[in-house]
Amino acid sequence: MPEKKILFLDMDDVMADAGQGILDIYNAHFKTNHTKESLAQNTLWEEEIGANYLSVRNQLHNPGFFRNLAVKDDAIEVVRELNEKYNVYIASAAMEFPNSLKEKHEWLEEHFPFIHWKNMILCGDKSILKGDILIDDHLKNLSVFDGQTLLFDAIHNVKTEGHQRVHNWKEVADVLL
Amino acid sequence: MPEKKILFLDMDDVMADAGQGILDIYNAHFKTNHTKESLAQNTLWEEEIGANYLSVRNQLHNPGFFRNLAVKDDAIEVVRELNEKYNVYIASAAMEFPNSLKEKHEWLEEHFPFIHWKNMILCGDKSILKGDILIDDHLKNLSVFDGQTLLFDAIHNVKTEGHQRVHNWKEVADVLL
Repeated sequence: MPEKKILFLDMDDVMADAGQGILDIYNAHFKTNHTKESLAQNTLWEEEIGANYLSVRNQLHNPGFFRNLAVKDDAIEVVRELNEKYNVYIASAAMEFPNSLKEKHEWLEEHFPFIHWKNMILCGDKSILKGDILIDDHLKNLSVFDGQTLLFDAIHNVKTEGHQRVHNWKEVADVLL
Repeated sequence: MPEKKILFLDMDDVMADAGQGILDIYNAHFKTNHTKESLAQNTLWEEEIGANYLSVRNQLHNPGFFRNLAVKDDAIEVVRELNEKYNVYIASAAMEFPNSLKEKHEWLEEHFPFIHWKNMILCGDKSILKGDILIDDHLKNLSVFDGQTLLFDAIHNVKTEGHQRVHNWKEVADVLL
């Protein structure tokens, strides 16, 4: 049997719904009512909201932010299947947020208990990853990866091009399973 | 100017004196007086102490263990110079110890403030590292690395062969600077 391919999965906005957590912070601060659904229809995030958001981005340091993020739809089921076919590693660029490190470990243990701690990577940038496939929502991560790339759709990457886009975990399953 | 080579540095028993921390736990529990100096002269660690130590290894989960480790002699000065010549990343297999994640981040910020958070990697196994050089004290990490390897001498690797051995940071400087 050939060796399993190495598949890296990003956490925020791929496995975990960081976008909703960020919108919650944004809406509370700016007294707005944006939703991911309304923002998915336009480039408002990339043209305006994303820049405004930087002024409240320090709230991501608050204890509990990463620990309490919701799991993206169908992620658990699809990752469980991927974990059979591939050598799955979770690769999160988390070092900017020291509080997030243990929280991300706990979050994975709670929601994805079938992922062994040996297969968790918390890093600063992803240029040092050696493997076959990377699923990520950020162009900066995909563009430095040597293997196959999938861009996971998010409100901040509506205009990103050059990588195969998947809109949800069902589409990931269609491509990789 | 050619791009800088990527150099991965392990933390425990390379930058941080985990061996002394572990011996302190061992000596306190078994009422012994082993020192790294005495153990460096023989294979007692590999033949006896290492196995006994497993029974108290759970103490590495105690808060503060990794945060309070001493820095190895000359590490700060040599890593500072290496950081000029190479693209230095710190790569620690820390995921087994969730408490260690933030502690290792803090330890690096205190002792090696010139290392940017983008260049810190906390992982489970090191087979996923893509770079040019790895300095590590464990054969299991060196043996899955594609590039140049340096084995950092430690009481638990006296018998390890197959990789260029360095006994201290001055020898690292001789090889890489």
